[in-house]
Amino acid sequence: MNYKLIVQYDGTEFHGWQMQEPLRTVQGELSRAVSLLDGRAVAVHGAGRTDAGVHAEGQTAHVHLRREMTPERWRGAINGNIARDVRVIRIQPVPEDFHARFSARGKTYLYRIFNAPFQSPFLARYALHEARALDVELMRVCARKFLGEHNWTAFSCAQADVTSRVRTLSQLDMRECWSETGQGRLIELTVSADGFLRYMVRSIAGTLLEVGRGAMEVQTVERAIATGERYLVGATAPAHGLTLRRVHYSDSE
Amino acid sequence: MNYKLIVQYDGTEFHGWQMQEPLRTVQGELSRAVSLLDGRAVAVHGAGRTDAGVHAEGQTAHVHLRREMTPERWRGAINGNIARDVRVIRIQPVPEDFHARFSARGKTYLYRIFNAPFQSPFLARYALHEARALDVELMRVCARKFLGEHNWTAFSCAQADVTSRVRTLSQLDMRECWSETGQGRLIELTVSADGFLRYMVRSIAGTLLEVGRGAMEVQTVERAIATGERYLVGATAPAHGLTLRRVHYSDSE
Repeated sequence: MNYKLIVQYDGTEFHGWQMQEPLRTVQGELSRAVSLLDGRAVAVHGAGRTDAGVHAEGQTAHVHLRREMTPERWRGAINGNIARDVRVIRIQPVPEDFHARFSARGKTYLYRIFNAPFQSPFLARYALHEARALDVELMRVCARKFLGEHNWTAFSCAQADVTSRVRTLSQLDMRECWSETGQGRLIELTVSADGFLRYMVRSIAGTLLEVGRGAMEVQTVERAIATGERYLVGATAPAHGLTLRRVHYSDSE
Repeated sequence: MNYKLIVQYDGTEFHGWQMQEPLRTVQGELSRAVSLLDGRAVAVHGAGRTDAGVHAEGQTAHVHLRREMTPERWRGAINGNIARDVRVIRIQPVPEDFHARFSARGKTYLYRIFNAPFQSPFLARYALHEARALDVELMRVCARKFLGEHNWTAFSCAQADVTSRVRTLSQLDMRECWSETGQGRLIELTVSADGFLRYMVRSIAGTLLEVGRGAMEVQTVERAIATGERYLVGATAPAHGLTLRRVHYSDSE
């Protein structure tokens, strides 16, 4: 039977999603537990390989299991055999041909920036700290330039395994939330697209940060989007600010 | 010059607030940094000694400093010399006789419970996980019984250093917030009083949990409050769900 899993993890102590023995990875941790429970070597396949340090609130995976148990018992059994920084929050039977990666229609990521003179001990694992003043309104203006279908070569890295670098960005929202002390604000970028190249969200976030700091002009970003010139783009923002929020499938899946 | 400090910390990797060489404590970490910067041994005095594992969003402390610097520079210098799980978020000059503990008029604590079939990797450090069903409405009814002036002997531990066990609880609010997946809810207890005995909030939280699970009657809790009988009270809830939210002073402080 084929099962779809929704998985959450704090990426801080993982070397990313993808199995790389002997390193500790989310795929490795889950596959080890599932193999133990299913009585044979079985691999959990994810919708995407999040990098080291990246978190997930809704990574999606599929796995073919032989042993017959209700989804709730499977969930309990897997969660009982993995570390507490990763949890299967949902498991459901899906058609045999469901594939977490190839069936995906798109993804939503969050990038969190804590803009304050000091980092918060509670956000240190989940948000990039930026002490300098940010012009959030200008970042919003710039964010709109990213929407739509573009060739994202400038916002990615050299990658041999993709045939096309064209993706359609359907959402790039910025939400601000001031801390109760009034001395800092959490800025959350929500980015949705039909697919992402490697480092794409972090590269967009890094570029928006440079615009916010006044170190880059909005026109330069427009030129980078239009020309694909890598040198016009801001630095890639660090992994720990990034969270995979959700993987989108058709309604029936 | 006397300074008031507002301090945040993730208590997970501290043996509590109070200095206990050679253990790692928040007071020890701060006092070491301040002594280094002030060029002499100086101790930071807190409003209260949070136990091992307890967090703070607004612990308050005072310290007498000799070196002349603006509050912002002091804050930056201290934060530059301590680990990232503790931060001074505010520092301000106060009258010489301001004392973080003796000047305090009251405190507010949060106790967080994540009620879901699975623990969240993001809440594991900050909320108690409770998988069983909870009758939150009944917990709310019970919470109101705690309000007002009582002798809290039943909700504390044997403690030699307090002369009175009478405290006035001015607030015990319960807020529920469902997770986006709809499979779990975060329950936040906000508790304010003019003072707290040791384990008092955790003992109230543990008692409310037993009421919510149907393991204890509201009338039993009323009797415990009235009689001070320790055996009528629920288990002390674990430290990691507890956060010191704020210490209250008169408006001028």
